[in-house]
Amino acid sequence: MSPGGRRPGNQDTRDDIIQAAKRIFATGGYDKTSLRAVAREAGVDAALVHHYFDGKSDLFIAAMALPFDPRQVPGPAGPGLHGPELSGAFLVEGFLTMWDLAEGTGSSFASCAGAMAASPQVADAMREFLAERVWSRLPRREGEDEATAAIRRGLVSTQLIGLAFTRYLTRLPPISTATPAEIGRWAGPTLHRYWADPLPS
Amino acid sequence: MSPGGRRPGNQDTRDDIIQAAKRIFATGGYDKTSLRAVAREAGVDAALVHHYFDGKSDLFIAAMALPFDPRQVPGPAGPGLHGPELSGAFLVEGFLTMWDLAEGTGSSFASCAGAMAASPQVADAMREFLAERVWSRLPRREGEDEATAAIRRGLVSTQLIGLAFTRYLTRLPPISTATPAEIGRWAGPTLHRYWADPLPS
Repeated sequence: MSPGGRRPGNQDTRDDIIQAAKRIFATGGYDKTSLRAVAREAGVDAALVHHYFDGKSDLFIAAMALPFDPRQVPGPAGPGLHGPELSGAFLVEGFLTMWDLAEGTGSSFASCAGAMAASPQVADAMREFLAERVWSRLPRREGEDEATAAIRRGLVSTQLIGLAFTRYLTRLPPISTATPAEIGRWAGPTLHRYWADPLPS
Repeated sequence: MSPGGRRPGNQDTRDDIIQAAKRIFATGGYDKTSLRAVAREAGVDAALVHHYFDGKSDLFIAAMALPFDPRQVPGPAGPGLHGPELSGAFLVEGFLTMWDLAEGTGSSFASCAGAMAASPQVADAMREFLAERVWSRLPRREGEDEATAAIRRGLVSTQLIGLAFTRYLTRLPPISTATPAEIGRWAGPTLHRYWADPLPS
């Protein structure tokens, strides 16, 4: 094979698997889908799915054209934090920087939001994916019950997704024009409060 | 005409105007569109457009299948507020109650978000509409410049739209299952801070 040359056969197989995964995730959701079922739908051996994709979440990211693995985004428990006040701004900045990099590609925020708006099944799969991949891994605050933790992660989600919607879809200045770091300074304290402060009863 | 009977001719004319308005708004945006241009596109007299629609914003609401006029939503300067702390919760509750009522109709949040995601022109028209209809009418805080006011209304927008996205599209409990009043209590203080507190520099 020439340097940099493509191997069309393999690329086709990978694409076949992705197309099969799109159909299976969109009908069965994320939780109930197995790599084995995707392999069957694609008409390939399950080992081949494992060869191309590092597990179900990796396949889902490819099938939904997500621009990045949400676990790459620095979170409240992420590395490099210098204090609790910093984490909200850091999370906002990381989240928007990653979506910024995806603009103009087939994995933009608009394409992801559009896919969710067009199909409740896709939205369900996305929620299940986020639940397994992100929310379940957030640290629980000591002594708090699951219901309170669910409110906290729900509120954090609303603020993050609203920033993306306003930046990339509504395109309202200055949310659409400021740097991720500036927006992090404005909205970061909100995430910190949702995450750490007593909830209004 | 029999009681409750329909007048198909008039309904058709109204629909023709709405279809024409959809095309014109989606290509020319909101600001630059005139009722005269819509009348021309629909092949009717401009007086007929004025007969069916109470101005451009009313026609836009019909063309974009918005479930309600955003000016109906109680805002920071809305009626019935008993103190500054209350207004954020009141705004969230009113906003979500109106979208709740629209669920299952052709004017759901999913259909509006999908239209914006599918077409940057529709998203532009929506932003221009909100700018004229909502944002420009919000009171400016004394002594503050336009740049600061723009940050404030941008941040308020992000939190409101994120609540709707999470409630109706991601459908993440408890944001998808709590009452608008409960969510108002949780997220209301955020709107109040975005609106009234000093912004982090």
